[in-house]
Amino acid sequence: MPSVKPLPRLTFVLGGARSGKSRHAEALVEAQASPWIYVATAQAFDAEMEARIAEHRARRPEGWITRDAPLDLPEAIREGPAGAPILVDCLTLWVTNLILAERDVAEAGAALEAACLDAPGPVVLVSNEVGLGIVPDNALARRFRDEAGRLHQRLAARADAVIFMVAGLPMSVK
Amino acid sequence: MPSVKPLPRLTFVLGGARSGKSRHAEALVEAQASPWIYVATAQAFDAEMEARIAEHRARRPEGWITRDAPLDLPEAIREGPAGAPILVDCLTLWVTNLILAERDVAEAGAALEAACLDAPGPVVLVSNEVGLGIVPDNALARRFRDEAGRLHQRLAARADAVIFMVAGLPMSVK
Amino acid sequence: MPSVKPLPRLTFVLGGARSGKSRHAEALVEAQASPWIYVATAQAFDAEMEARIAEHRARRPEGWITRDAPLDLPEAIREGPAGAPILVDCLTLWVTNLILAERDVAEAGAALEAACLDAPGPVVLVSNEVGLGIVPDNALARRFRDEAGRLHQRLAARADAVIFMVAGLPMSVK
Repeated sequence: MPSVKPLPRLTFVLGGARSGKSRHAEALVEAQASPWIYVATAQAFDAEMEARIAEHRARRPEGWITRDAPLDLPEAIREGPAGAPILVDCLTLWVTNLILAERDVAEAGAALEAACLDAPGPVVLVSNEVGLGIVPDNALARRFRDEAGRLHQRLAARADAVIFMVAGLPMSVK
Repeated sequence: MPSVKPLPRLTFVLGGARSGKSRHAEALVEAQASPWIYVATAQAFDAEMEARIAEHRARRPEGWITRDAPLDLPEAIREGPAGAPILVDCLTLWVTNLILAERDVAEAGAALEAACLDAPGPVVLVSNEVGLGIVPDNALARRFRDEAGRLHQRLAARADAVIFMVAGLPMSVK
Repeated sequence: MPSVKPLPRLTFVLGGARSGKSRHAEALVEAQASPWIYVATAQAFDAEMEARIAEHRARRPEGWITRDAPLDLPEAIREGPAGAPILVDCLTLWVTNLILAERDVAEAGAALEAACLDAPGPVVLVSNEVGLGIVPDNALARRFRDEAGRLHQRLAARADAVIFMVAGLPMSVK
């Protein structure tokens, strides 16, 4: 039997759209003993979004406990059970939800950082890099991009491992 | 005389706009003995596009055999002559053409993968990474981004070498 | 006392929005003996831009000499004093200013390259990677993206060190 490589306390998987982020993060978690906690930040506002959520959910095998946390992500991370690895997919949707709910994103980010650092099990965060295109036309998209970028920097600084996904392949950044 | 480093069966060069992808891929191929096959997927719909195609074509020295394959890319790859290296530039334009022609992109991607794996010579694929900006407003752009990303993952998984271009410089991903 | 690692002649720090480019470049310069030259290309056209400039300026400690060069960047780099490290933040704003002022961007880029190569002190250039999203709808944004990408390639080819920032973390490209 191959030995299981234990996950560090905090892993951050960052990548573009359809870069294989979720799949890679799931593989990292599924290499550990189950149960595995899946914390979903997605809220289905329309049919396209619903289809994406369903596709992600259908891909996950038995052994996953799914928990929805469109806003109260730090609380969901702290819930346990103790020792079970926690996958958060994804931070950019969480930032969108926070902005729409008029929550303070910096404050929420600090709470997330604290939750990750004393979580009951190893945490794997997934997020979209959205800052490598042309400056968006509208102010809301620019604000979203700034908030997401600041949150990524905060968490990457604390993470034990940071992975940048390119075409389904992991590049180790840290 | 410097020895020529042979190309592996499949090389995938991915990068942003004006990242030096084409130039790098051409240099990889031109380090081999000619003739070299250039498979162009571009279709000129307007003057801007025509100028880009002409600029690319003018840069290429003698020794290149150019073949246009806006849609039937797998067939163009299989054509030979045997042993000649094949450069495909680029996959994102091919995906655009497939969508506009209402072809099944996943099916075409599977055919491309198969063609690369039993091509008559080493293959170098060039493509644009388009998934690292803000989510596009319109559904067609989102679909294009998803199809391109899925195709990139499929081919990167099969490639012997994957290169991510940054400001004209190659980063080795695989 | 820790020894100071001297900066090479030319360092190029490239990254997305809110990727920590400016902060990283400042840290590289501040590890040298002061004074440090800060060459700012920003022009405040609106309140959002003014706030960004003020935020950057407030973050910088004593020891910085700030010089504004929205257009005449090569001249500002050559000014000295001799030996003082020079931080240029950022090239994408400079390209924007050049386009708006109807200057020849390729010519200006050649002048910048020459200025970097015989600057009176080590130079650290900061720029935004903007080419990894969907092709922009409007021709001006496409032109900006092309000009910026060409300039990046030119300078990266000459730089002694090229760094790609991901979530506040430096990846060494060269």
